[in-house]
Amino acid sequence: MGSLTVQNKQTRLMAQARASATFNPYKLTCIIYKDEQTVLKRREAFRRVEKATGTADQSKLPREYADVSREGVYREGVRLGTASFVDGLLHDHDFFSGMDQRYTLSNCTPYGLHYMMFIPTIEEQATSEQAAYWLPLARSGTINGAYCQTELAHGTFVRGIETTATLDTKTDEFVVNTPTFTAAKFWPGAMASSCTHVILMARLIIARKDYGVHPFIIQLRDLDDFSPMPGVELGDIGMKMGYNGTTNGYAIFHNVRIPRDWLLMRHASVDRDGTYNKPKHDKFAYLTMLYARATIAQGSGFKLAQAATIATRFSVVREQGLGPNGEENADGSETTIISYRSQNFRLFTIISRAYAILFTAPTLEGLYASLRNVGETQDFGSLGYYHMLLAGLKAWNTQVAADGTEDARKCCGGHGYILTSGLPSIVAEAAAPATFEGENYVMYQQVGRYLLKCLKVLKVGRRIDPRMGDLEKAFNMYAGGDEIHYCQAKNEQFLDPEVQLSIFEHRAIRLLIKCDEAIEKSQRNGGLSPAKAWNQHMMGIIAAARAYMELVVLQEFIHGVSRINDPAINAALSRLRSVFALTMIVHPQSYDAISFVDGNYIRRDQLAQISSCVNYLLDELLPDAIALTDAWDFTDASLCSAIGQYDGNAYETLMSWTRQLPMNKDLNEKGSACMEAWERWTKLALKPELRAML
Amino acid sequence: MGSLTVQNKQTRLMAQARASATFNPYKLTCIIYKDEQTVLKRREAFRRVEKATGTADQSKLPREYADVSREGVYREGVRLGTASFVDGLLHDHDFFSGMDQRYTLSNCTPYGLHYMMFIPTIEEQATSEQAAYWLPLARSGTINGAYCQTELAHGTFVRGIETTATLDTKTDEFVVNTPTFTAAKFWPGAMASSCTHVILMARLIIARKDYGVHPFIIQLRDLDDFSPMPGVELGDIGMKMGYNGTTNGYAIFHNVRIPRDWLLMRHASVDRDGTYNKPKHDKFAYLTMLYARATIAQGSGFKLAQAATIATRFSVVREQGLGPNGEENADGSETTIISYRSQNFRLFTIISRAYAILFTAPTLEGLYASLRNVGETQDFGSLGYYHMLLAGLKAWNTQVAADGTEDARKCCGGHGYILTSGLPSIVAEAAAPATFEGENYVMYQQVGRYLLKCLKVLKVGRRIDPRMGDLEKAFNMYAGGDEIHYCQAKNEQFLDPEVQLSIFEHRAIRLLIKCDEAIEKSQRNGGLSPAKAWNQHMMGIIAAARAYMELVVLQEFIHGVSRINDPAINAALSRLRSVFALTMIVHPQSYDAISFVDGNYIRRDQLAQISSCVNYLLDELLPDAIALTDAWDFTDASLCSAIGQYDGNAYETLMSWTRQLPMNKDLNEKGSACMEAWERWTKLALKPELRAML
Repeated sequence: MGSLTVQNKQTRLMAQARASATFNPYKLTCIIYKDEQTVLKRREAFRRVEKATGTADQSKLPREYADVSREGVYREGVRLGTASFVDGLLHDHDFFSGMDQRYTLSNCTPYGLHYMMFIPTIEEQATSEQAAYWLPLARSGTINGAYCQTELAHGTFVRGIETTATLDTKTDEFVVNTPTFTAAKFWPGAMASSCTHVILMARLIIARKDYGVHPFIIQLRDLDDFSPMPGVELGDIGMKMGYNGTTNGYAIFHNVRIPRDWLLMRHASVDRDGTYNKPKHDKFAYLTMLYARATIAQGSGFKLAQAATIATRFSVVREQGLGPNGEENADGSETTIISYRSQNFRLFTIISRAYAILFTAPTLEGLYASLRNVGETQDFGSLGYYHMLLAGLKAWNTQVAADGTEDARKCCGGHGYILTSGLPSIVAEAAAPATFEGENYVMYQQVGRYLLKCLKVLKVGRRIDPRMGDLEKAFNMYAGGDEIHYCQAKNEQFLDPEVQLSIFEHRAIRLLIKCDEAIEKSQRNGGLSPAKAWNQHMMGIIAAARAYMELVVLQEFIHGVSRINDPAINAALSRLRSVFALTMIVHPQSYDAISFVDGNYIRRDQLAQISSCVNYLLDELLPDAIALTDAWDFTDASLCSAIGQYDGNAYETLMSWTRQLPMNKDLNEKGSACMEAWERWTKLALKPELRAML
Repeated sequence: MGSLTVQNKQTRLMAQARASATFNPYKLTCIIYKDEQTVLKRREAFRRVEKATGTADQSKLPREYADVSREGVYREGVRLGTASFVDGLLHDHDFFSGMDQRYTLSNCTPYGLHYMMFIPTIEEQATSEQAAYWLPLARSGTINGAYCQTELAHGTFVRGIETTATLDTKTDEFVVNTPTFTAAKFWPGAMASSCTHVILMARLIIARKDYGVHPFIIQLRDLDDFSPMPGVELGDIGMKMGYNGTTNGYAIFHNVRIPRDWLLMRHASVDRDGTYNKPKHDKFAYLTMLYARATIAQGSGFKLAQAATIATRFSVVREQGLGPNGEENADGSETTIISYRSQNFRLFTIISRAYAILFTAPTLEGLYASLRNVGETQDFGSLGYYHMLLAGLKAWNTQVAADGTEDARKCCGGHGYILTSGLPSIVAEAAAPATFEGENYVMYQQVGRYLLKCLKVLKVGRRIDPRMGDLEKAFNMYAGGDEIHYCQAKNEQFLDPEVQLSIFEHRAIRLLIKCDEAIEKSQRNGGLSPAKAWNQHMMGIIAAARAYMELVVLQEFIHGVSRINDPAINAALSRLRSVFALTMIVHPQSYDAISFVDGNYIRRDQLAQISSCVNYLLDELLPDAIALTDAWDFTDASLCSAIGQYDGNAYETLMSWTRQLPMNKDLNEKGSACMEAWERWTKLALKPELRAML
């Protein structure tokens, strides 16, 4: 953490804001990271890595801001990524396997996919013989694996993949090829210049017969001199909004030969004679993506919390204006921006959503574990449920994180637009997961499909999967036509979790029934094909899916808070849970909030009461703004933000880092970018007689 | 424009999509840019500039993607900016004065503030003698001016500015100083390394008396060798999300002396003996910011249209999945993503909002002209109205553009995340105006303040400014308590502009009355101070202001379309206007859509009818998707997008640009970033016995 040696207006404001907490943030930290032992171990790991990389010293401009060239950012990414990769191996921990030391999903590093996708795929898809060969190499970190699926023209729709792996029975090898330019592998993380091996998703071809997409292992680079293997063309896809500490790559294969048993054969296998043995269940090939979704959905909460931490810290030291309506401060002194309701309304909405995502972690971890066991338990019947819940949480968590980080950035005004605020990179890193490993609009449709199937079962009076008990309960309570149900709560009763839950239940089941009826009607009366009817009502299906996920998330939040024994923390997080539930209704940017009222379950006067509750909650929570963000235990180095320093010394740090920028070292010296631009262009432009020379 | 010489699946899909238009896009281009002569002149200017800069050739990787280092991006910015600056001077046009050749607000270039703020400020604030000296220098482009107001700790709240200009009557000079580190000028565009002079906003001090913030001219760099003037410390604030082709700078002043008459004295003046003559109207100092808001509000529509163009073009060539619900294509062929309702719903919402912003242009131009004449007309009474409308349009237009560009980027999936798609820079450039020149949440509060004043007048039965006739009309129609008014429309009647207008009118006045009553109640019954009451209901005030602006924008859209004589274009834009109005209600991401129904003006069954209308409109508009975006007449060079090429050749261009990246030229050669990273870090990390060396 930073030190409080510096004393100025900003650090004093920060100290005051920190002192006003109603609970001990360290105790909350131990809840967030499960127990104190883990907190202490994590802190040790961060100290080691930040010491090894020299990132702890906040008086120095972070290197990633000093050199933003493609090569410079990549070099720094490998330098930092190596430090955390090796720390995990030397000290036997996995703190940086899912997220790096900046709390970015570790696929942003050159080594992250090794743990996120490469090893899990082998564990799940390899035979015991294959596992016995590959896992020791992978777990000891003597190879660095990645996951190679997406192609230039093929993304979420895996079946569209064109890359081929053709069996050559003569040599007992597969021959890997990129048949068309649109089949070039494009996007896989770490692939261009960091990994040595990848899981390759390719079409399995035997004797001209196409058996569909299967997982192979293929080596991309030589382990001694790192040169690409014969027939492999590798390249960087270039600078992206974020994730530039690694190289997302493209790969083109020309007759690359791999042994037959580099096809991962636990489920589907190919014999020496070319006989294909098909898998018991065809979804296995996609399991790894499901694992990744669990990690992604969880990680997004930390990104959002980082943005919330920076924006909240800046908001308690930034002063602007004479108070609300310019009326408050007669003495002309300015007001800290967190005092403005529009600012604290936005900040606490963001903070509450970061905690909401946090409380989905137990479910996500449970899903991850269950999926990893599907092979053992042979519980194929559950795959649909797991898939739905992961798709939904991935979509909801990442969307909320993407929107929330950007709003947090906007909360910091102009300073949030500069790289050294740390926010632009956080926004960019939060934006990516909304797209990768399953585009969110596609994810929601998959959730909707599952929910509509459940509804059809419920409509004929049968039971559904007990894990969908919330949907069944909502159906039994509210399916009788929504116009007959009204929320009875008033005023402070809207702080009651049961009342909040009923609002979300009513909305979820109503939207589901509404789009089910609409789809049926379009087919029955409109004569549309099922596909066309689905397309007509796609937005309604997505809305129903999102509403169900919001019900799930609220349940998790309520459940998570109920397990907290510390009374002060329980009280603060209960307020935050109410802010979460009620701002989902009254925040102007909440998705589809109109659906909370268009069924008349909530009336207009109740909406006003809900807004009053939010005002009350925000006033209550203001003293805990810093504690609720400190509790995430982010180091200054992990935030990498001049304006989000723990000690509040925003302006001095920002100016100090700015002065250290290489561009400013030689700004006015001959040969600098500034002077070169003057000599070559500006000078000629400003002299009419010289303009012809341009 | 691109050429159709290349023939592949993507270019064929694009040709088909283009051929399906129901109108002639060139005719719409002539409407967008006012007349054909302007279109032709603009095209000539673009051809000259793109030829001079070599940006027309789309087979080459654009330089800004080749070198993304701070210095490289700045160098390219000056190179391109100089070309358009000089073209305007040599060919006497102002096509690039408000927006550059990439349709970014020209304050992103090293010369843009010269026209956006420097010259207008002199024209408005200088005496005729001062104007006679400065304007010839400025207009002939022999000096490059900027605007220096924001400080490290002071932004939107101009009165907080700390920089001082103290009169020295002995030498008849002002002495400019930065009294504290928080007073460092921080953010002004072009200031670090491109401009020669700036308008300096500083506190005028005479004999220890502080007369508040006034506009001065100060020279920052020598016109011969470009070195900073004595006592001026200049620096770059570093890389930002966007706008890096210029240097936003910081400046610290140490006893910098300027002649007394470099204070712009048209309104407030200082005599030789130090006598201060105060201005007739104290708002003059802020006029330049108002001019800038008109330009900003207009420019945001073009950014949004650029993003819509790229996303729409990519959506007609990108194929994914087997159609809605995976059911449509039995033959296994994939479907272009624009066919999915979720995709075309989002795209046409974005397109309709870009046109909505476009149709606010006449009003913005009128406001700009009126403001420029305030000095002559002495029409101070109108300033409040001008200020409100500009603040509101600036806030609404820029927010819609910021959100819409990001959603357009997400519509392109992973490829939208790569710089070479052109979208990340467009998103970053659209995000900035939501913050600068008046933060949007502050802007909406200023609108709200004005509207609440109008309401108080209406409530006592008096008339208000006739230019607020729409508010008065809404008040007279709906003020009698909203529960008694119901929208009578059904089904296709929601396509009627009058019906749409009534919905927006009812909502606007209802929200205004609601927050007025809430504020009064909090003071009367709650005993809150006016400031505290305002703060409690700030979100409601902002909602009312936004709702009024959306009414204004819809009126402009209706009015703009009504003036279009071409029947085919009128029909298409009428559909688009309906999409605009109705998606403001039913789009899940529309701000505060809940307020359309919580007053019961629209009932639930009507919402379903509105959704059906939107489905109908989208089916009708699909054939015009390309024509509606082509009409904006963006050159490939101005979009700078591999996936948004006019000819649809997205994948070949993306792969070609990717292969040209410098990083890929020497990827596997000794000394490359990749090989250096391997030698220094990865190799050691992968060899357990070498890890200690790290």
